[in-house]
Amino acid sequence: MNSYEKLEARFRQVSHLEHILGVVSWDEQVIMAPGAAIHRNAATAELVGLMENLLRAPEVGDWLKESESLSLDGVWQKANLREMRRQYLRLTALPPDLSKRLVIARMNSEQEWRKLRGANDWKSFEPILKNVISLTHEAISAYQKHEGLSKYDTALALYSPGLNTLTVEKLFNQIKSFLPQMIQRVVEKQKSEKVILPEGPFPTAAQKALGLELMEAVGFSSSMGRLDEAFHPFSGGTHGDARITTRYNQEEFISSLMGVLHETGHALYDQNLPVDWLTQPVGASGGMAIHESQSLMLEMQVCRSREFMDFAGPLIRKHMLNHVKNPASIENDNLTRLVTRVRPGFIRVDADEVTYPAHVILRFEIERDILEDRWPLAELPAVWNEKMKTYLGLSTLGDDKNGCMQDVHWPSGALGYFPAYTFGAVIAAQLFAKMNESLPRVRGSISQGDFKPMQNWLRENIWSQGAQLETLDLIEQAAGPLSAEPFRKHLEARYLA
Amino acid sequence: MNSYEKLEARFRQVSHLEHILGVVSWDEQVIMAPGAAIHRNAATAELVGLMENLLRAPEVGDWLKESESLSLDGVWQKANLREMRRQYLRLTALPPDLSKRLVIARMNSEQEWRKLRGANDWKSFEPILKNVISLTHEAISAYQKHEGLSKYDTALALYSPGLNTLTVEKLFNQIKSFLPQMIQRVVEKQKSEKVILPEGPFPTAAQKALGLELMEAVGFSSSMGRLDEAFHPFSGGTHGDARITTRYNQEEFISSLMGVLHETGHALYDQNLPVDWLTQPVGASGGMAIHESQSLMLEMQVCRSREFMDFAGPLIRKHMLNHVKNPASIENDNLTRLVTRVRPGFIRVDADEVTYPAHVILRFEIERDILEDRWPLAELPAVWNEKMKTYLGLSTLGDDKNGCMQDVHWPSGALGYFPAYTFGAVIAAQLFAKMNESLPRVRGSISQGDFKPMQNWLRENIWSQGAQLETLDLIEQAAGPLSAEPFRKHLEARYLA
Repeated sequence: MNSYEKLEARFRQVSHLEHILGVVSWDEQVIMAPGAAIHRNAATAELVGLMENLLRAPEVGDWLKESESLSLDGVWQKANLREMRRQYLRLTALPPDLSKRLVIARMNSEQEWRKLRGANDWKSFEPILKNVISLTHEAISAYQKHEGLSKYDTALALYSPGLNTLTVEKLFNQIKSFLPQMIQRVVEKQKSEKVILPEGPFPTAAQKALGLELMEAVGFSSSMGRLDEAFHPFSGGTHGDARITTRYNQEEFISSLMGVLHETGHALYDQNLPVDWLTQPVGASGGMAIHESQSLMLEMQVCRSREFMDFAGPLIRKHMLNHVKNPASIENDNLTRLVTRVRPGFIRVDADEVTYPAHVILRFEIERDILEDRWPLAELPAVWNEKMKTYLGLSTLGDDKNGCMQDVHWPSGALGYFPAYTFGAVIAAQLFAKMNESLPRVRGSISQGDFKPMQNWLRENIWSQGAQLETLDLIEQAAGPLSAEPFRKHLEARYLA
Repeated sequence: MNSYEKLEARFRQVSHLEHILGVVSWDEQVIMAPGAAIHRNAATAELVGLMENLLRAPEVGDWLKESESLSLDGVWQKANLREMRRQYLRLTALPPDLSKRLVIARMNSEQEWRKLRGANDWKSFEPILKNVISLTHEAISAYQKHEGLSKYDTALALYSPGLNTLTVEKLFNQIKSFLPQMIQRVVEKQKSEKVILPEGPFPTAAQKALGLELMEAVGFSSSMGRLDEAFHPFSGGTHGDARITTRYNQEEFISSLMGVLHETGHALYDQNLPVDWLTQPVGASGGMAIHESQSLMLEMQVCRSREFMDFAGPLIRKHMLNHVKNPASIENDNLTRLVTRVRPGFIRVDADEVTYPAHVILRFEIERDILEDRWPLAELPAVWNEKMKTYLGLSTLGDDKNGCMQDVHWPSGALGYFPAYTFGAVIAAQLFAKMNESLPRVRGSISQGDFKPMQNWLRENIWSQGAQLETLDLIEQAAGPLSAEPFRKHLEARYLA
């Protein structure tokens, strides 16, 4: 075995442990009895420790160096080596002691956040958040030394390889140039639209059956995954077993259904990653922005469209007609209006696709400033409130629960993640526009319930590419240089035409 | 840290990985999508390999040697050291190459068995079974060198520490001296009894609700475990999370209910193991015979009794009265008769408690002969048939599916396991007799639905003891020297009084 082959063998071992980790963390959120928590935390830490030891072993560094002078076999091996080096550098950059302190601080802070958010208690939470951010700061400084980037560039690259502050600022400035006025125009336009809310109750079993039928229709393979319930819905699982979750509300079935389809977008990506490279770093997804583009492609571009409702409407009525009090509310027209309603609100996860970027831009500007130490953390509630007023016309003064304390990201030390959501929306719009250009009949096939053309296009251009290219290069290869213009046009066409 | 403390730390690491293994193997049987199987096999093998490497590392041998001269703190540490040594010797006895070949042969043989049993194809299965048995033979010879026992003694001790061939033969001869005649007498007596079969269908949801209510009534903690469905029911899970499974048949609810209560007996043991020692070998159960005694204590001694039906009858009617066609069939009298019906049959797992030992004794005599090479494997179907005729009056000629191919044990290389079932039944009867002697009102409390006295007695005498004592010593401490007499008396009293 040459050094590169030794690296592949070592990363294959690591991928096996990642498989196991995928199962136990899904289990922790969906299945685990509370009595096991203390054992599970210790066991998971042990497993992660073994995995990190396999990766940061000195021989891995030697093999990486030796591999530089090998002539590798094609683009996949070269990209694989690049991804291996990225993981190795990231892991060895952190002093193990800092890594451990960060894990403990995050767990503690997330637990405190759950309590203190409920109590709207910013004062008590501030020092806890400050500690996590300071440790995250330390970690990012350690990464930074290796990667030679600015602090926020480093944070961004942790989640979406190739993104940097300048690109984010450029894209977000484009969006800011049209979004606030667009929100106002859409809200104004929708004032005169009549939308009927479906009245239930809608039994969980019927909602689940409908979700499963639509998941499979759009391409989800049930022999390679499943749908379950979780209090905080997520998409997880492991190779050959993409597990998505949702939460049911008997009074209202649209949110959960759209949530299921969103997670299905993530799952389609995971189920169609390149089979030959699954056990290697290059066989993983292209990062969070691309992953989010796949969930938003399905949810926003496809499933909230009129074409999709022409196909899905009859299935929705098949499952819900027995339960709905007002049948007119689940006619295709009304369903389409229901899934495209725009209303500025406080909560990011409840936001529609028009107001969502405002939530993200606000968070980006704040977390960039925090990482660069531009103002003290104590000012966070005030800064949040100012930006909410500017971007969405809403005040969160004294309501930090629905303001700066609403997301788990910062309490868990995830700074640099948020831009991925709006990059995902922009990329989805750009990919879908390109797909329609290449396959003019794709919208028609969606209204017929034929999702094969869409799947084939995404498989070829995105899913099968793994982590071969970084975020912006992958988009450029599939649909040209990244631009907010297709996103703007999509919003214009859907909401203002 | 002294050497003993280093051992504790190492075994704690191993117990963390066992926790993880408990989760993923439950998942494999209950949850996993078929598409993940190939990844899961590789991942599990990786995890087991890491665990074995931690255990068989040379320093572990050194620490074990050095610990011999340490003055340990009390019986727990001493017993812990004994169990550590047992695991280390067992693991290091096998050449790693043989260990790997055995794992692969077992997996292959189990998979072939599933197909060939269905096809009643002994001829094709014989060479596959021969290969597994020959590798098992090799493994047992390797263990034997360390333990200085006969081959079958070695096999028995793998599952139930302290059992040996002589003890098994002695106990089984006692049982053979009365069982065949007893079976005939019971069958004769029951001919005149009128039993009404409940007619359904009984919905899964109602069966599950009934099962959960009775599980919790007898002491199962739902914050430390759960009930799910599996095609082959088993009891699994991990520390703080005892997971039992069952299979529902809408036509008949008694079998599944009794199965749930059987697995609950296993779970009560697991949920009540000594908290302070859970991460150490001595904190595990006392082996398979003791474990089976706890499931049979609950299922046979307690739940198939008249006293239990006086308590459970009303709950059964609460859940089933809406579904049963013939309400008289779920009156207490008829329910008691239903759970004590005796009928010789082909299948061990369907056998009642009177005929069950005949199935086990037959298997014991055969596997002992096979391990000692007393006759060629090709004769297995004929030997099986002869013994079935002798012990149960039934012929399996040409019906190997319901004869020597019915169990997964031999195809998976588990020779020496079967006696644990009947030792479990005998131990359960002896413990229950002793419990009644010490707590004369225990039967009365059961009919009142008060299971606390039973739980307290078992917790003190069995559950809290972990693996401190070997099988026969634990029984002797709790209820005197092992004897088949309480079991015989129990059968006399229940079936012939």
